[in-house]
Amino acid sequence: MRNLNRFISLSLSVMLSLVARLLHLRTSSCQGSRRSMATIVSGNKTSKMVRERLRNEVEKMKSQFSGFRPSLVVLQVGDRDDSNLYISTKLKAAAEIGIDAKHVRLPNTASQDEVLQSIMSVNENLSVHGLIVQLPLDSVNPINTELITNAVSPEKDVDGLSCVNAGKLSRGDLKDCFIPCTPNGCMELIRQTGVSVAGKHAVVIGRSKIVGAPMHDLLLWNHATVTTCHSKTPDLPEQVSRADILVVGAGRAEMVRGEWVKDGAVVIDCGINHIPDETKASGKRVVGDVHYTSASQRAGFITPVPGGVGPMTVAMLMENTVQSAQRFLLKNQTRT
Amino acid sequence: MRNLNRFISLSLSVMLSLVARLLHLRTSSCQGSRRSMATIVSGNKTSKMVRERLRNEVEKMKSQFSGFRPSLVVLQVGDRDDSNLYISTKLKAAAEIGIDAKHVRLPNTASQDEVLQSIMSVNENLSVHGLIVQLPLDSVNPINTELITNAVSPEKDVDGLSCVNAGKLSRGDLKDCFIPCTPNGCMELIRQTGVSVAGKHAVVIGRSKIVGAPMHDLLLWNHATVTTCHSKTPDLPEQVSRADILVVGAGRAEMVRGEWVKDGAVVIDCGINHIPDETKASGKRVVGDVHYTSASQRAGFITPVPGGVGPMTVAMLMENTVQSAQRFLLKNQTRT
Repeated sequence: MRNLNRFISLSLSVMLSLVARLLHLRTSSCQGSRRSMATIVSGNKTSKMVRERLRNEVEKMKSQFSGFRPSLVVLQVGDRDDSNLYISTKLKAAAEIGIDAKHVRLPNTASQDEVLQSIMSVNENLSVHGLIVQLPLDSVNPINTELITNAVSPEKDVDGLSCVNAGKLSRGDLKDCFIPCTPNGCMELIRQTGVSVAGKHAVVIGRSKIVGAPMHDLLLWNHATVTTCHSKTPDLPEQVSRADILVVGAGRAEMVRGEWVKDGAVVIDCGINHIPDETKASGKRVVGDVHYTSASQRAGFITPVPGGVGPMTVAMLMENTVQSAQRFLLKNQTRT
Repeated sequence: MRNLNRFISLSLSVMLSLVARLLHLRTSSCQGSRRSMATIVSGNKTSKMVRERLRNEVEKMKSQFSGFRPSLVVLQVGDRDDSNLYISTKLKAAAEIGIDAKHVRLPNTASQDEVLQSIMSVNENLSVHGLIVQLPLDSVNPINTELITNAVSPEKDVDGLSCVNAGKLSRGDLKDCFIPCTPNGCMELIRQTGVSVAGKHAVVIGRSKIVGAPMHDLLLWNHATVTTCHSKTPDLPEQVSRADILVVGAGRAEMVRGEWVKDGAVVIDCGINHIPDETKASGKRVVGDVHYTSASQRAGFITPVPGGVGPMTVAMLMENTVQSAQRFLLKNQTRT
């Protein structure tokens, strides 16, 4: 009987601990479903703040150095509609900030040598601080885009796409390079959340030259532990579930599902995809690479699409141009 | 009494399942301790194979292009003992392969301009295909190492340390750049294991310019999902435990413990550390960044220290030099 009592008491304690564990699990998942929706990180608002700050900085420069204006050249080859739209957005943003932006357009009959010559002449022009070549190039002639991108002087490469700038960024020389505009905008949005990057686990989906690869570098040199995922990653949901900070530049509509996202994560969506939507007059709507509705129920912070990363890109191009002008002034001050 | 019986039967089934679970755990850990030791990936053997292959390639070049020899210049500033030792190893390896290697030594009184001038003259010399500047520079004058490294023509930068080569590697242009010798050697060792990199989870510890950062790039562009860890990573054991392929370039003796390593992983150890050892005549011995004894009980493949990554570095410098000579021939053939 004593043995039976001991057995019953032992069994009871085992069962009680199991029940306690189950209750704990239920409580956690209840907390999960009860938690509030993610805070929306607005690119519209943040880009406006950046542009206002830049306008003040340009004002200051102009008052300190009479007659001085930061100057940007946008070089276009051909006449693509989408390029025309992007360029007009850039020119408008520049004008508002007080940057002197010039649109140089070569005909679609331009040869590679003619494009290179245009670049060289802007490289040599001391009154220009930033030069971007609008991609893709729209020419009837074969033109090596890589060669064109790398012909831009690294000191004026405000798109940050040349090998030299990529090399500096990838090896941690962040103060001495131009950071590509989209990842730079993502970092600005992450800063807005107040979440510190150092020591966090960041996951980047995508490894493109303009988004994924430089994003990895930026997060790494801001001291996150960074995992880069891509089309060959076999366990994407598992990788994503470990991200305190998730940046997605995969180019696939709503690929990242809410269920994958870690509770409270910062989710930055660089995707711009058009999907069919019969409720819209145009028959389509814009979505990101993240399934917004489900992800915003798990994330702590999330960027919307549109109105998230998109508006930041142009703002950061302006930031790089102003920075280039400041470096120019500093160098010339040091010289005199 | 019926209730008591039901209770006892339920308790018994709960306890039996717990016992079964415990037994399962014991079995797994027994399997763990029963598995065979890791296969040793020998850098001595692999580097010998690489050097023999290169000797054959150089022979072929010489027979095809009479009087032609791949040529390497090793530029040294000052007279550090360790540098002298490294340089003599390089010169010896070059001689064995049939590379014409020249040691240019500037005195430790050389100025930055004098070093730059030496580099320029080698850059312009068409009969030289590779130029490395032995670091650290040993000069009584202040010299900007970054400036020196980047003065080497990207086409002759067989150490792969210039911004241009780093930029190309980091953005996936592997065919068009020189890959730094240590990570290139690690890749060669990984290839020797027969384990394919694509789709694997690789973890790199360290983000230095010569090991960690380019290693990340190489693994990424060979299509692994890559996590970079460093001094600010708070959960290193957990990160390491997920690595199918682990490359360690942390510079801390035996930092990675065997218990962290995933069963069957490929472990590549770039560390070279001296620790006290009273059993040795010198009072010290060389160990890697991985605790070899414990790690080799878990890993599928492991590199020893010494005799692992170390010998590969010089072999890959020779490979880059031969590759540079081949590119030079190809370019000149295309031109004629």
